[in-house]
Amino acid sequence: MAAAAAPLRPAEDHVMPPLNATHDPDRRSWVARANDPDCDFPIQNLPWGVFSEADGTRRVGVAIGDQIVDVTALEADGVIEPSPGARVFAQGVLNPFMALGPAAWSATRAMLADLLDARAPTRDVPLVPQAGAEMHLPVFVRSYTDFYASREHATNVGSMFRDPENALMPNWLHVPIGYNGRASSVVVSGTPIRRPLGQVKPPEDSAPQLAPSARLDIELELGAVIGVGNPMGQPVTTAQAYDMIFGHVLLNDWSARDIQVWEYQPLGPFQSKAFGTSISPWIVTCKALAPFRTETPPRELPLLPYLHEDAPNNFDICLEVELAPQGGDPVKISRTNYRHMYYSAAQQLAHHALSGCPMETGDLLGSGTISGPGPGSQGSLLELTWNGRDPIQTRAGPRRFLCDGDSVTLKGWCDGPYRIGFGRCEGTILPALEPARLG
Amino acid sequence: MAAAAAPLRPAEDHVMPPLNATHDPDRRSWVARANDPDCDFPIQNLPWGVFSEADGTRRVGVAIGDQIVDVTALEADGVIEPSPGARVFAQGVLNPFMALGPAAWSATRAMLADLLDARAPTRDVPLVPQAGAEMHLPVFVRSYTDFYASREHATNVGSMFRDPENALMPNWLHVPIGYNGRASSVVVSGTPIRRPLGQVKPPEDSAPQLAPSARLDIELELGAVIGVGNPMGQPVTTAQAYDMIFGHVLLNDWSARDIQVWEYQPLGPFQSKAFGTSISPWIVTCKALAPFRTETPPRELPLLPYLHEDAPNNFDICLEVELAPQGGDPVKISRTNYRHMYYSAAQQLAHHALSGCPMETGDLLGSGTISGPGPGSQGSLLELTWNGRDPIQTRAGPRRFLCDGDSVTLKGWCDGPYRIGFGRCEGTILPALEPARLG
Repeated sequence: MAAAAAPLRPAEDHVMPPLNATHDPDRRSWVARANDPDCDFPIQNLPWGVFSEADGTRRVGVAIGDQIVDVTALEADGVIEPSPGARVFAQGVLNPFMALGPAAWSATRAMLADLLDARAPTRDVPLVPQAGAEMHLPVFVRSYTDFYASREHATNVGSMFRDPENALMPNWLHVPIGYNGRASSVVVSGTPIRRPLGQVKPPEDSAPQLAPSARLDIELELGAVIGVGNPMGQPVTTAQAYDMIFGHVLLNDWSARDIQVWEYQPLGPFQSKAFGTSISPWIVTCKALAPFRTETPPRELPLLPYLHEDAPNNFDICLEVELAPQGGDPVKISRTNYRHMYYSAAQQLAHHALSGCPMETGDLLGSGTISGPGPGSQGSLLELTWNGRDPIQTRAGPRRFLCDGDSVTLKGWCDGPYRIGFGRCEGTILPALEPARLG
Repeated sequence: MAAAAAPLRPAEDHVMPPLNATHDPDRRSWVARANDPDCDFPIQNLPWGVFSEADGTRRVGVAIGDQIVDVTALEADGVIEPSPGARVFAQGVLNPFMALGPAAWSATRAMLADLLDARAPTRDVPLVPQAGAEMHLPVFVRSYTDFYASREHATNVGSMFRDPENALMPNWLHVPIGYNGRASSVVVSGTPIRRPLGQVKPPEDSAPQLAPSARLDIELELGAVIGVGNPMGQPVTTAQAYDMIFGHVLLNDWSARDIQVWEYQPLGPFQSKAFGTSISPWIVTCKALAPFRTETPPRELPLLPYLHEDAPNNFDICLEVELAPQGGDPVKISRTNYRHMYYSAAQQLAHHALSGCPMETGDLLGSGTISGPGPGSQGSLLELTWNGRDPIQTRAGPRRFLCDGDSVTLKGWCDGPYRIGFGRCEGTILPALEPARLG
């Protein structure tokens, strides 16, 4: 015992890395659709996912226009080799590639951009149309943590359920509040979500009952995917944390508000958040998001030094939520932006590792519900309808919370000299099981 | 969409399975030490673990007396073959074997007992002395959930921090309260635990500071290891849940009380419980524990039907905690019994899956701190010292919470016609990193 602690790396002056040729706005691809200004996947994006065709074999791919580059095939053919002598894409999941670290991520991104460039000497790259492919979870989600980083969201919830005059908890302006979620119920966009059963206790009743949730909600979030971890007992700086994040996805943390309010004291949400968390299939890399880095909002109180940032670690990402009743057209119910978040993903990650908690390749960090300051910019029905008081109008009538058959789609993109899109994150509500069948 | 829900299996009349030849108290082994009445590992126990010798290769083993049966070698030699045509022990971790399910577990247990029986025709079984082996985590811990099932513990904590007159939260007698813990920081007995840094805010201060935890505590628990899971969207009965549990380990959920009290509202414990959770290396199977099944304590309020049990699902397990200062002899600081727990592991698991949350092979469910009704039967220093008011005496002076160099050991065993022991779960506190080095 009494082994000396491994030294921390000294705090670095983290400057924003310069943009490079992969960010050149004039660059075009020989995949025609990639050059349309409304396309989510231009050559400057190159997000990572996992797909299959009819035979069901999972392969790693990169989206370009309306196509998928079959990266597993590129590696098998020896065209790319991120880890000399090894096949990091052979398992059809991104974890082995992510574990190689930022230098390998950048080098592979640059090589793929060169292969897809309109000026490339050959066009001998295996492509699969997105329209014919099935998408899967891009990573094995090792652990899932959900944060609570929108000041507006925390204030709204505190106003509704505690005290409008003291809506924020005393710790909120100091601590990037988070809790451990349930990794096993993270699913890819398109997976149906079954309305959960649970214990609910209406205020007028003396005892709880077993019932399907009647207050089923969404949470619009961004998910940070951890590429490389830290050893147990070894905290990281915010600059190190930024470099540990491989990329981001859209994330919908489906929530059963009636189950939540009965179960959450004193140890936090549990089964109210365990029945499904949807993520978009394409991981947009921090490298692709680099031109859209922006500061977190001004601090109301000073943060402890371990949360200081030497670079703008938020991103300017437009976000939208659509709700479509069964068989009906969608309506937009929320428009907001990730830049409103009070804590960046790098700050959340640095806080997560502060105790010495080991972070691992494939960890997923939900940002927390993203709510903006204006009307219609909230990321949950709880807030948009003010706990059901002010229903939202849809093509199938008013909505306080979700009905069976409702479909919710999240969209996200960065606007600039080109568009860095996230694609879609969709889920549709299936009816609950019959409680009586639980016997 | 609108796919019909898969039907639940009807509630079964779960009767306790009869004991069999593996429980015969007259059975003896040709491994001499196994026949000593004070030995944790008689032939009726046969707990599972993962070990290595000098070459570091991890192998699956079963403890017998002071020896380990090299089960990986037995499978490689074709002596046992739990999954025809496959090698479930080759990876040096128990997950592939556990995923085979209860019939395979029982058949393999019976076969190993026959090989080790004093009446066995040969003694040609590969053995490794426990004294020369290094033990590892027996399973890849997929997810870790911690519960709060001791009524005495919940009452003590509620009395200290809320209201002695209403110490139990209104939900506690209805809901097996739990929260998601951090799987990545689960370590095997013997791994040192570094005192965590964290945000702490003394009541007299207006802002928090970054500091090493000054209120480092233990939590004496039993951990249930899930062998087989349930599909997403598909709850399970308590009888099904009992059959999904492979076995149990001792578990110490190290806790930083000063970090916890500042961070835990409104989403529960996070970094205060993320720096280390120790488990004992040997998984004692439910099969070995079967003769020690016992009822949960009487219900004060009726439970919802999904939590009903048709069989006694608790266990009568004696538990002890020892504390040894650096270089000093241990003192016993707690003696209690698992049978006091208000909710069984099967009830906790049925509740965990109620929302449709998928449980998976390798999930670990902490029972919650095990505190009994009498003096000295509490499972945390928080309770034993009543939040530091009444220090415990050790050979190195009084203890309110843990000092650097302190070593804590959990022990557990069932007493009957033979002893079913859990071995030891030990951890020693390393000094914290210097906060200034976080930059």
